[in-house]
Amino acid sequence: SKNFFLLAGPCAIEGEEMALRIAEKIVGITNKLEIPYIFKGSFKKANRSRIDSFTGIGDEKALKILKKVSETFDVPTVTDIHEVSDAAMAAQFVDVLQIPAFLVRQTDLVVAAAETGKVVNLKKGQFMSPESMKHAVTKVTDCNNNQVLITDRGTMFGYQDMIVDFRGIPTMKQFAPTVLDVTHSLQQPNQSAGVTGGRPEMISTIARAGIAVGVDGIFIETHFDPKNAKSDGANMLDLSLLEKLLTDLVAIRKTVNAL
Amino acid sequence: SKNFFLLAGPCAIEGEEMALRIAEKIVGITNKLEIPYIFKGSFKKANRSRIDSFTGIGDEKALKILKKVSETFDVPTVTDIHEVSDAAMAAQFVDVLQIPAFLVRQTDLVVAAAETGKVVNLKKGQFMSPESMKHAVTKVTDCNNNQVLITDRGTMFGYQDMIVDFRGIPTMKQFAPTVLDVTHSLQQPNQSAGVTGGRPEMISTIARAGIAVGVDGIFIETHFDPKNAKSDGANMLDLSLLEKLLTDLVAIRKTVNAL
Amino acid sequence: SKNFFLLAGPCAIEGEEMALRIAEKIVGITNKLEIPYIFKGSFKKANRSRIDSFTGIGDEKALKILKKVSETFDVPTVTDIHEVSDAAMAAQFVDVLQIPAFLVRQTDLVVAAAETGKVVNLKKGQFMSPESMKHAVTKVTDCNNNQVLITDRGTMFGYQDMIVDFRGIPTMKQFAPTVLDVTHSLQQPNQSAGVTGGRPEMISTIARAGIAVGVDGIFIETHFDPKNAKSDGANMLDLSLLEKLLTDLVAIRKTVNAL
Amino acid sequence: SKNFFLLAGPCAIEGEEMALRIAEKIVGITNKLEIPYIFKGSFKKANRSRIDSFTGIGDEKALKILKKVSETFDVPTVTDIHEVSDAAMAAQFVDVLQIPAFLVRQTDLVVAAAETGKVVNLKKGQFMSPESMKHAVTKVTDCNNNQVLITDRGTMFGYQDMIVDFRGIPTMKQFAPTVLDVTHSLQQPNQSAGVTGGRPEMISTIARAGIAVGVDGIFIETHFDPKNAKSDGANMLDLSLLEKLLTDLVAIRKTVNAL
Repeated sequence: SKNFFLLAGPCAIEGEEMALRIAEKIVGITNKLEIPYIFKGSFKKANRSRIDSFTGIGDEKALKILKKVSETFDVPTVTDIHEVSDAAMAAQFVDVLQIPAFLVRQTDLVVAAAETGKVVNLKKGQFMSPESMKHAVTKVTDCNNNQVLITDRGTMFGYQDMIVDFRGIPTMKQFAPTVLDVTHSLQQPNQSAGVTGGRPEMISTIARAGIAVGVDGIFIETHFDPKNAKSDGANMLDLSLLEKLLTDLVAIRKTVNAL
Repeated sequence: SKNFFLLAGPCAIEGEEMALRIAEKIVGITNKLEIPYIFKGSFKKANRSRIDSFTGIGDEKALKILKKVSETFDVPTVTDIHEVSDAAMAAQFVDVLQIPAFLVRQTDLVVAAAETGKVVNLKKGQFMSPESMKHAVTKVTDCNNNQVLITDRGTMFGYQDMIVDFRGIPTMKQFAPTVLDVTHSLQQPNQSAGVTGGRPEMISTIARAGIAVGVDGIFIETHFDPKNAKSDGANMLDLSLLEKLLTDLVAIRKTVNAL
Repeated sequence: SKNFFLLAGPCAIEGEEMALRIAEKIVGITNKLEIPYIFKGSFKKANRSRIDSFTGIGDEKALKILKKVSETFDVPTVTDIHEVSDAAMAAQFVDVLQIPAFLVRQTDLVVAAAETGKVVNLKKGQFMSPESMKHAVTKVTDCNNNQVLITDRGTMFGYQDMIVDFRGIPTMKQFAPTVLDVTHSLQQPNQSAGVTGGRPEMISTIARAGIAVGVDGIFIETHFDPKNAKSDGANMLDLSLLEKLLTDLVAIRKTVNAL
Repeated sequence: SKNFFLLAGPCAIEGEEMALRIAEKIVGITNKLEIPYIFKGSFKKANRSRIDSFTGIGDEKALKILKKVSETFDVPTVTDIHEVSDAAMAAQFVDVLQIPAFLVRQTDLVVAAAETGKVVNLKKGQFMSPESMKHAVTKVTDCNNNQVLITDRGTMFGYQDMIVDFRGIPTMKQFAPTVLDVTHSLQQPNQSAGVTGGRPEMISTIARAGIAVGVDGIFIETHFDPKNAKSDGANMLDLSLLEKLLTDLVAIRKTVNAL
């Protein structure tokens, strides 16, 4: 009950088999550890740096897979939307609509998500301060939708790096429950090559710090075979490492709860 | 002929009278100084930090005013688009479609703009390196549209400030003609208050440096009454200062051309 | 034995009475919590931003007070040095010589500290990467002194702010035991006014994150009356808050040790 | 008379022959272009990132070479100092004492330089705002020495890069004549390897921008064989390129003077 919650799954829905396989594994772990769980998967990838990057298997096909995951394992699901018209469409299939970090300043998109009545997960822009997320949250609540989450995925530091500013967690918790995205916040955009790198060996470091400072949720992209995943392979956690990671985080959470 | 070109106008189209008044003034100056001129005006403001900010007078109404400016003064026009569906709509009224900095990683939007056959002006994301703009340009040219511009509007420096990295100008000129936005690059987002400030007294400094390093164009938001403008008043140049600014830039340009 | 250690005390030695009073209080707490403790105090402040800032009570006078604290409470002491000639002088009175962040690239100073045979505490420059501290450590070990500590005090983020990059902790632990300075890393240099501000309410946040990611030690500047301290009042922890802070950190440390 | 002045020479004094050879070449160019010239050379390099880097040929030997350059070509000279005791020593041989960027917050050092009565050239710390240089200048003028220069050498941007913030030039000119160091401001510290890289092809870009925004002086490290120089080879300008660079800058300066 006082545990953190988890948003986790693959970067993109590549197909039904992989989605169900990943969900099954995570559901098993989170049930055991009593972690409330929301399955995550993108139905399309709209903001690739290169035009030849993987963008998806088809919108409706991917959304139906998200629905199937939800029904099969009785878990809520989250996906990200990129245009106003995505909001109503995705809302038919998922429980949480996520606004990507690059798009969180797009008022029309945030309002469209809010008006579906679904939970809205606002990713903090890499170019935004924690304080400025207050205005993004207000855009949702002004639509009479009080179900808002904020997710931190790091802040731009020079052209090729990002840092998580942990001072932002208590700041943003004043506005809405706050999630730490421990995989994207380790991205290191190699902007010349157009392929993003990362430091997955640091996932445990960033996640432990997040739990210690009181995040409400953890966001993790994970795959049973990150190297062969169709997007963001450099940042995803190998699924075989998830149980140990979450077990450690639960232990720290229990200690922090008791302080 | 070897002069720089100018994209200039108000932040937002607030009405026909103000648009024509601003255009007339700038056309007079640019004709005298032999500066190729493109009238700029946003038909809506979609990425305000606060939901109570001004967003526009109506899309079609504003676009028709842009068309009227074009016909009245025989100048091309530029406006920014925020969703895929904006591209075809705006292309009926203007000559240049501009992709806002926050949205330049949205492949669908860039492709939609490119497919109209209009000139596409890609603003460098505040979170992007000059090198990474190569990929954005390629998304346009891969659609068989070779009319691309890049516009630099500064790079995030801490939460509350932006810096123009002039090393980026020669770098981006390798990919496409490169414009320097001398008003937005001086923004200082006061992210707590949700109202962006600026340092308009520095416009001349940044513009001179841009011309000295060889920018192909200059982008300026300007208004006859910046303090009462409905958006971005803190950054716009007072229209009464434009002629002196451009005269100085032309002088530097001529010197640089002769080196 | 597996607990973290603590470097703590006032920013500057303002006099004997205040030094003994602060030391007595901290010794009481750290004995109870079984935290190895090193008393910290600067014998002069050489890098003030303004010439009218407090610089000290006299070098030898302050160093003798450090010695007296050490003898009275049987604890080691640490002070920072700013010139080559400080090294041998300070080494007569204290156990750990600290190289300030601004000076950690000064080879002569680091070598002079190393050659005293004392423990050398190298503060990471606000302008340096965690990786680059390897070279600073090597300068000490090349003098046949293997007693080196690294202390992180945050990294410059824009002109007015600093961020702690927690990825740096595991990185720097590869080179030497690594300490987190939880008070200076919250500084916000108001560089126009020349007086540094801070966010002391965030000390617990930063400290908990540090313990969660495995720092070997914690560095805290503390005073019974921060507002009336002669330097760095804006960042020091009120001494009355220290016991609760350390008690919480010990609890997290025990959990992390058991993972 | 209204031209900019030049501080230029090799990074380090490697010997008499190379110093005289470089000085002769630059004196010839600056006489022709009517640029007031100050010969620059370091008598030791105290802030190397690695202990095995070149540090100098001997303090007095190098200072005597600076003196000889001054007498041979009737030009003033500048060198950088790192400790209080360097100030009086170097003042016997040179006309301008330079405070390195890392050390500009060291009050004792700045005061020692000021008290020699020589011109003091304060390099802006890579971690400092332009505004904050006001306090450094005041430390000199409070010693009744009004001969102060400020030199910008870029501002840290992420761990591996620096940017010149040209807004800083008019800001710092309010405090003292302001110089732009066009070679060090292009450094890219590869902090893992401990060897600093650079982008010498950008020297002309940065220098032109500096002249366009009104810098009072230009600082250039130059060598007839940068690749074989004993320090900072990656950033120095090849001496054979100096005349063309300065000729271009003089042309822009004349235009700017006339605006």
